[in-house]
Parts: sequence; structure tokens; C-alpha cells
Amino acid sequence: MKTSEITTEYFLERHELIKPFIHNTPILTSTYFNDLSGCEIHFKCENFQKMGAFKMRGAANAMASLTDEQKSKGVVTHSSGNFAQAVALSARSMGITAYIVMPENAPAVKKAAVKGYGGIVIECESTAIARENKAFQIQVEKRATFLHPSNDFDVIVGQGTAAIELLDIHPELDYVFAPVGGGGLIAGTCLACEHMSDHARAIGVEPENVDDAYRSLQTGKIERNHDSEASTVADGLRTFLGDINFPIIQEYIDQILLVSEEEIISTLRDVYERMKIIIEPSCAVPLAGLLKYKQEYKGKKIGIILSGGNVDLTNLPF
Amino acid sequence: MKTSEITTEYFLERHELIKPFIHNTPILTSTYFNDLSGCEIHFKCENFQKMGAFKMRGAANAMASLTDEQKSKGVVTHSSGNFAQAVALSARSMGITAYIVMPENAPAVKKAAVKGYGGIVIECESTAIARENKAFQIQVEKRATFLHPSNDFDVIVGQGTAAIELLDIHPELDYVFAPVGGGGLIAGTCLACEHMSDHARAIGVEPENVDDAYRSLQTGKIERNHDSEASTVADGLRTFLGDINFPIIQEYIDQILLVSEEEIISTLRDVYERMKIIIEPSCAVPLAGLLKYKQEYKGKKIGIILSGGNVDLTNLPF
Repeated sequence: MKTSEITTEYFLERHELIKPFIHNTPILTSTYFNDLSGCEIHFKCENFQKMGAFKMRGAANAMASLTDEQKSKGVVTHSSGNFAQAVALSARSMGITAYIVMPENAPAVKKAAVKGYGGIVIECESTAIARENKAFQIQVEKRATFLHPSNDFDVIVGQGTAAIELLDIHPELDYVFAPVGGGGLIAGTCLACEHMSDHARAIGVEPENVDDAYRSLQTGKIERNHDSEASTVADGLRTFLGDINFPIIQEYIDQILLVSEEEIISTLRDVYERMKIIIEPSCAVPLAGLLKYKQEYKGKKIGIILSGGNVDLTNLPF
Repeated sequence: MKTSEITTEYFLERHELIKPFIHNTPILTSTYFNDLSGCEIHFKCENFQKMGAFKMRGAANAMASLTDEQKSKGVVTHSSGNFAQAVALSARSMGITAYIVMPENAPAVKKAAVKGYGGIVIECESTAIARENKAFQIQVEKRATFLHPSNDFDVIVGQGTAAIELLDIHPELDYVFAPVGGGGLIAGTCLACEHMSDHARAIGVEPENVDDAYRSLQTGKIERNHDSEASTVADGLRTFLGDINFPIIQEYIDQILLVSEEEIISTLRDVYERMKIIIEPSCAVPLAGLLKYKQEYKGKKIGIILSGGNVDLTNLPF
């Protein structure tokens, strides 16, 4: 399927299809952040999503798109983060076997979470090659369908349903801010703005330390982060774009803003203290971007996707 | 005014009167805690209340009850906790001067919060006598009205509006659980159940370490905690009942349950990790009580007042 073939009806049909597997998450406001930014902000709280992150939407849509034959063989992915849990939980909800390739040194709590959702954890060495090989091996042996966490059309459309729900309630929004990691969420948000609003534009925000997407927009090709420099408290955003989501982002995004580690951490703490909600550091990135460039958005109506809430509370960065 | 003189209409009138000054806070559910308890739980999220706690309701109602003459002279209270902030913010909202007596060794962040809401902080020595004397001095000098954080009829009715809102949406509830500290919230919750439901009963939960209210119900008179033993992570609940709220509690409460420090801390962490919301340790107390005695409440519909979210995130007890 091509981007040009997506219609608003298609988007809404897919949303309808995955509704039994996801929460229509609450939308919160904060007088404090409205005053601080000079904007009217509506926070879409994917930290309250099933398994604690927006990834549930993409996983559910990808799996709902499988044929019965594919469903009977199972799915496989490699992830030590939220997508692993999302695939395991979606698979259980749909009666599908999920094989999750995780590095042997992944935190025990993350392996336990995947197993808790009924996923079959398959350990491998902690290198990109090793996990790709292991996942490929399972594709061949089990004839399982491989699911990519961000560079997959169905995943992108699924992630876009967060902004669909937000724009359904708030069609007046001028901008929808989302973090940029592997590109699935921001690409889906771009498409949602395109199809659900006559004027809303998507804005991506990325940590300065992993500014691969920002650079990709400038050069017109997919850039990567040099591993040695790719350190950020927003560890969910270290990944890079793919050949399916990048063209969507290129075509529809308004712009990508960059924020420093200090700005991310300070915003994170402010959200905890003022909004009394728990979010991942990656979630603080779009709000940090809005606050940094608030002069440009004064008086605007802003949506912000708070992407998830799975965080180690004993190891907060403040 | 006597308890017997309260009518449902009076309760709803007071609620209407303070609506401009409070949030009608969200009600959350959690599949995880429903499964764990075997109940259907509805959490009334006063951690999302203005200034971060239910105390805003009582302060607003007490101040809305003042005559214009009284309003012109101002109000005074002594508190280093949530009530101080609630009085300061309510007073500012109504154009009233608020004098807040705080111990000189109170945390700077708490003094700053009160000043941030426009309250006039007056420092005193860190003893009960010193703060009572200082507050009395201000009553005399300024002719300001003294507001008690829990043993005040208007405060009790104000705190009860949290359960009013909960029972308005969920009239089917069998029980409403609330923490027991100074007795204002649980007394107000008792009255709300009495007036807004034909069958809901209020249940109080208290830390074992400060079980003064539990003992008060047994002996029929107001018991206190011995200071040397009165240590609990739920530090908002160390206070004792008063002669106005105790008779209400005696007459209407179903029972008071006790929970250990370990049960409070474990429940607190579970709420953070599963519900992704920030609550004070005191808030975890009623849920800890329900989970401890879940066999007795199996299949019941339960409301829980999550009382506030003002917590030092750099000093969590887990």
C-alpha cells in the first residue's frame, strides 16, 4: 500500500478494528503549562495506554492486518523495549503466538513483563547482527511474520490513531507535537493531521544528542547517529528512521525541533510535579520543544502526544 | 449547624458554590487493580485537584461561608502541609488575605509554595503551642478568622464533595474508601454516602502506626497517638480527630481498617508503576486496606479517594 492510497475512511476503519485492543486514552490539560507556554495544550496520555505506551496501537494494527494463515504461524520481533510488550499483549489478545528476541543482558524486569503478557522470550547476544539473525531464523523455522517496531506501514497507521483520537475531540488544534525515535509515531501523526484536520500540522521533537531525523530532513536521506555519541536520557529515541516512514515524514511534517538533555530532564520533572503523572523521559521531549520555542507558538492550540509511562522509578534522572 | 440539619440540597448547594474554585477531578479505573482485588474500583483522583490535594475543597467551602466583613479581615491557619497551600490559593481566588503560620524549620519549598499562591507566611517556633499562640495572636491583631484543617463543619462538607462527585457518576458504589488523618475527609465522605446514595457506606483506612481513629471508635472518645510512636510514611495521617468530625464518623462510618507500613509502600509503588500517576503515600492507604481485606469485598463496587499528589519525588520510600 502506498501513502497516496490512504484515505480518511481507511484510517478510521483501521482505528475501529483495533478499538477492542486499545484504550481511548484520556486527554489532560494543565493551567501551569498553559501559562508557561502561552498556548492551549491538550496532552494525549499514552502513558495510560495498555502496557503503558502508544506502541500498543501499532502492534495491534499490524497483527489485525494478518491473514488467518499468518496468524496461525505467529509473529516475531526483536526489541527490549515497549514494542516487545506491545506485541506480546496484542498477540495474546488475538490468540497469536509471539516470539520476542531479546538480548541476553536485557533487564530481567523487561523479560518478565514480556513473559507476563504471554510472549515467548528468545535470548540472543547483545548485538544488532545477533538479534536480526535470531529473528530471521525464527521467521524461517516457524514461518512467523516479522514485525518491525516503526518502519512498517500498518504500525505507522496504528500509531497515528493516537492523534486521530486527539483531533476527533479537538479538531481546532493548530499543531500536534510528538517525539521522533524510529519514526513510526511521528509518521502516523503526520498522516492523522493530514486526514483528520484541515489545518493541523505535525511537529517532531528530537534530543540534540540523537538528531538523526533532524539531519535526515536536511540532507534528504536517512542519517544515523554515531553510536559513541548516541547517549540521551530519552533512550527510546536513539533509533533511526526507515525507508517506509521517512518519505511520509518528509512530505507532511512541519518541522523537527531539537532540545538539550537539560531541557528534557527539567521538563520531565515539571510534568511529574505539576501534572502528577508518570511519563518516560522520551515523553518530555515534545513539551520541552514547545517550551523552548514558545514565542513561535504563542496563542496556538497544541496537541502533545505523551508517548508512554514505562520508567524505572528507582532511577529517575532528577 | 448540626449534622442532623444537613440536607442533600444543602450539600449540593455548597458544592455548586465552590465549583468555580475546584476541579471536578477525573475518575480512573485500572484493570490490574480490579483483577488483583476482585472488585470494580473507581479512583477519584484528587491528586489532580488544584494545588494537588482534596484540601482545596474544604478550604474553598470554609472561605465561601464567610461574611463579607470576615472576608475583609482575612483568614489565618497553621499548617506546613496541603491545607496551607489550599487556604492560600482559595483566598487568592476569592480576594481574601491569608496568614499562614508555619514552623521556621518547615521546608523552604513548602513556604515557597504558599507564597507562590499569594499567602503571607508567618514563621514561629516548631512546637504545637508556639504555632497555636502565633495563630491566636493574628486572630486578635488582624481580626482574621481562624480555619482549622479538619475539625470545622464547612471544611468537612467541602471535603465531602469529592465523594459527591464520585457518587454522582457512580451511584452504584457499595463502599467509598478514604484515608483517616485529622478526620475531615472521612467525615465528609461519610456524609456524602449518607446523602448521595441509598446504600453506599464509607470505610476509613489508617496506618497501624497511627491508629488513633481506630482506637477512638473502640473507646468512644478521641484518642491520640503517642508522639514517640507516631511515625509513618503516610505523614499526612499523623493528626487526630476533633470534636466536630468524630461524632459524624462515629455515627456513619462502616468501619476503620488498619494497614502496615510495608503494605502502604508496596501499594504506593504498584500505583506508580501500574496506573502511571503520582500520589502521596497517604493516598495508598485506602487501596492497601482494600487489597489486604479483599476477601470481604469480593465482587463489590468500590470508590477510592486518592487524596493528593504533593510528594518529594527525590525522596520516595521505595
